[in-house]
Amino acid sequence: ISCYLSRSANTQFSVRRSARDITNMSQQAANGLPCRGKVLNLDNMNPNVRRVEYAVRGAIVQRALQIDKELKEGVKKPFTEVIKANIGDAHAMGQKPITFLRQVLALCAYPDLLDDNKFPDDSKQRARRILEACGGHSIGAYSSSQGIECIRQDVARYIEKRDDGISSDPDNIYLATGASDAIVTMLKLLVCGKGRDRTGVMISIPQYPLYSAALADLAAVQINYYLDEDKCWSLDIAELKRAVTAARQHCNPRVICIINPGNPTGQVQSRQCIEDVIRFAKEEHLFLMADEVYQDNVYAEGCKFHSFKRVLFEMGPEYSTTVEMASFHSTSKCYMGECGFRGGYMEVINMDPEVKAQLTKLVSVRLCPPVPGQALLDLVVNPPQPDEPSYDKFMKERTAVLAALAEKAGLTEQIFNTVPGITCNPVQGAMYTFPRITLPQKAIDKAKAEGQVPDMFYCMKLLEEEGICLVPGSGFGQREGTFHFRMTILPPTEKLKFVLQKISDFHIRFTQEFS
Amino acid sequence: ISCYLSRSANTQFSVRRSARDITNMSQQAANGLPCRGKVLNLDNMNPNVRRVEYAVRGAIVQRALQIDKELKEGVKKPFTEVIKANIGDAHAMGQKPITFLRQVLALCAYPDLLDDNKFPDDSKQRARRILEACGGHSIGAYSSSQGIECIRQDVARYIEKRDDGISSDPDNIYLATGASDAIVTMLKLLVCGKGRDRTGVMISIPQYPLYSAALADLAAVQINYYLDEDKCWSLDIAELKRAVTAARQHCNPRVICIINPGNPTGQVQSRQCIEDVIRFAKEEHLFLMADEVYQDNVYAEGCKFHSFKRVLFEMGPEYSTTVEMASFHSTSKCYMGECGFRGGYMEVINMDPEVKAQLTKLVSVRLCPPVPGQALLDLVVNPPQPDEPSYDKFMKERTAVLAALAEKAGLTEQIFNTVPGITCNPVQGAMYTFPRITLPQKAIDKAKAEGQVPDMFYCMKLLEEEGICLVPGSGFGQREGTFHFRMTILPPTEKLKFVLQKISDFHIRFTQEFS
Repeated sequence: ISCYLSRSANTQFSVRRSARDITNMSQQAANGLPCRGKVLNLDNMNPNVRRVEYAVRGAIVQRALQIDKELKEGVKKPFTEVIKANIGDAHAMGQKPITFLRQVLALCAYPDLLDDNKFPDDSKQRARRILEACGGHSIGAYSSSQGIECIRQDVARYIEKRDDGISSDPDNIYLATGASDAIVTMLKLLVCGKGRDRTGVMISIPQYPLYSAALADLAAVQINYYLDEDKCWSLDIAELKRAVTAARQHCNPRVICIINPGNPTGQVQSRQCIEDVIRFAKEEHLFLMADEVYQDNVYAEGCKFHSFKRVLFEMGPEYSTTVEMASFHSTSKCYMGECGFRGGYMEVINMDPEVKAQLTKLVSVRLCPPVPGQALLDLVVNPPQPDEPSYDKFMKERTAVLAALAEKAGLTEQIFNTVPGITCNPVQGAMYTFPRITLPQKAIDKAKAEGQVPDMFYCMKLLEEEGICLVPGSGFGQREGTFHFRMTILPPTEKLKFVLQKISDFHIRFTQEFS
Repeated sequence: ISCYLSRSANTQFSVRRSARDITNMSQQAANGLPCRGKVLNLDNMNPNVRRVEYAVRGAIVQRALQIDKELKEGVKKPFTEVIKANIGDAHAMGQKPITFLRQVLALCAYPDLLDDNKFPDDSKQRARRILEACGGHSIGAYSSSQGIECIRQDVARYIEKRDDGISSDPDNIYLATGASDAIVTMLKLLVCGKGRDRTGVMISIPQYPLYSAALADLAAVQINYYLDEDKCWSLDIAELKRAVTAARQHCNPRVICIINPGNPTGQVQSRQCIEDVIRFAKEEHLFLMADEVYQDNVYAEGCKFHSFKRVLFEMGPEYSTTVEMASFHSTSKCYMGECGFRGGYMEVINMDPEVKAQLTKLVSVRLCPPVPGQALLDLVVNPPQPDEPSYDKFMKERTAVLAALAEKAGLTEQIFNTVPGITCNPVQGAMYTFPRITLPQKAIDKAKAEGQVPDMFYCMKLLEEEGICLVPGSGFGQREGTFHFRMTILPPTEKLKFVLQKISDFHIRFTQEFS
């Protein structure tokens, strides 16, 4: 058959033309239509996009949503609801919004309420200030692409306070559609070169799969460095050296990404470790990306959040004037958990001014980050002060959320570690546990026979039998031959206990079944 | 000097190393530091990003912001404010938000207000419905990546009603962070191949520069087809044929993008023209992207918005079952003008189910579109009905906005066409005029001598002398030797008259000065 598609017979994709296409074409030919497949199909779409994977919302979550629907349609299951412990989605887990934040947002959305005496004065004052900074005094106007100037000023002051006075320049702050947006934008700027000169980006294993997904999309080279599970997921400089040295054989390593507190691993890095990483970045001439979205989520005794910016500046001008860095923060985590607003920012340090101009140009193409998210961020970095009417309630709500998280972090570690075959590092920070699970050889064999990775097989079985949705460790990366899952500690305490018990029972049952 | 940077001496960028780098390196060497430039500089950053241009927020807007600051600092100018007529930012131009939309958004942000009898019942009912569809009944929870299901259902029903019953499947609707986000995502899916097999994308000239920016970022091939200024910016199929035929010599044309009503050109396409485009897309085996964000902004007598979807289905199954298409809509334009919320959607038609699964995966990496923007979209597609308490006020506000825009569209054409050297097509729809300006040869020569494109020179002079910010036609593309600018018609009527007069006077003065 003479066929339009043969035009592209010399493309890199044509060899992969599938039986499906041929069927498509034959059907069309039978209908008397020109013999052509879809303009856009799996074989001729962007190959980088095909390589993207994002486990946190992957196959297991698709199945969880299906089961949810089946339950609603009255299908009988051994459980009455699906508990989605796969993602750090605080409000979905029942955490209540912080009153002050939502009052100001309502005032910004509908300024007629500024006359309402139900709202405290400080919430009105904050709303007025935000509205005055908006075009036409409306959050419905575009903002400047870098974000509203007075909010960037507030962010800079917040960072200065956090870092005991180390100065922050509002011009170095870029507001974003959540931290994810800023991270992808920064990676995009950094990627160039072909073949052996292609940009390599160092990421931890286990990692948060936004990184691997963005690198696949950008066709950058992913350089894995492994965290040390036996030392509470700590970061070892010798391992960084090993990884970068090996990578220099086949790519151009230019970036190191660190997540602190860790996702999915929950560790909080020591000041010493951060210093070592900064020294390493300087020695190896790497751009440092510090994902610090869990900076307020630190629970463990003796642990403290140290910002990369602060350590960098405390190391003196040899470092503070040379090491190029971006730090990321978000409104989705910490005590507020406002994921749906997609608020966040990055601070860039020592960035070449010409590159900064390019960054500003790049973000302008998408016009601006969502203004409600910008407004929310402003409240997070500029919360009620002790002399203001909303202070007491705000502090009470904030403290309650963080105290509950700390309790749940302890509980999780404690219960999992009583189960033979589950070992769990302390959840020092962030919102997840990443316990190691021992799987019987028979289960591993069964999974492989079914074409599944063993921890996916385990998690799917847990989902089908108990209605609990976790993410398999393979979605984050793990050392060959080890298996894990990620679970958020966000469910309310009683529900979390229930979930932990259900998983424990399942694990014992699973082990017996495959022994 | 032996230098770290020489490692990458064989990259494609090293040849462009600039004097600046050398200076950087020498300075560092003098300080006793290792001789290395920035990790990230203009020469080794992503070359695609460097090629991106976005005139709507380009150099002229940067200068406008500076002038704004100078005015605030008390610098004397021949004007007291900068009027930013460069962008379709309705609220910034003084348009008031629609009450109903903002009431519901306030209720969603702060559900305590659901007890407040100040809010009409239908606004409460809408807010409750949205909240019930959110995780934990909070707009602070992540939504599904494709967008909240009941909102996608509402969008589908809205499309069905718009298209007189042609069915729409909620599974084909993807909510997005403004239409821009959806357009970029769709283009990203479509781009593949190398060299002569690289994906080519047909865009109109003049175009909205989001398209050229996204194509530069994706390193796709931009294929220009010219609109016919002499025929009110209409689209000529012969011109499409010319463009695609020429392009096949050097790339693989796979996509055609259409903006209707037009941006920046304000034309509204006839039903016949849309049919011709669909036939062309089918014949040439192109994916059709229909940017229809101005679908409610149609002003001219005898003009009507015809959706590509509807025309496609009215052409019968030969077309409706084969032509692959995506249509885009937004909450930023029409009567609501809520740009800051970044709401929008796309509907995909005849998309390969496997590609759809890839699309769903791709959007999941960014978690979800901002939920306040999704909520807003729900209200736009599901506005108050005649039997509901908010209906009268809603309709009054909506009609007033659209009537004022229609008046301003007429006014703009009329006033500009009285000025010798300015010719202006009717503003049939959208929010812009794109008049042609005749520039004296002396002005063209002067601009070239100063290294500026002539219409940038003109617009910069207008900005400095009158405080009016327009975008030069070169930012959108125009036929060689012609010059234009884009101006939004959004300023309030009296201010618009003032602006039109100022530009007219300036044009006459400019022409005299350079004659």
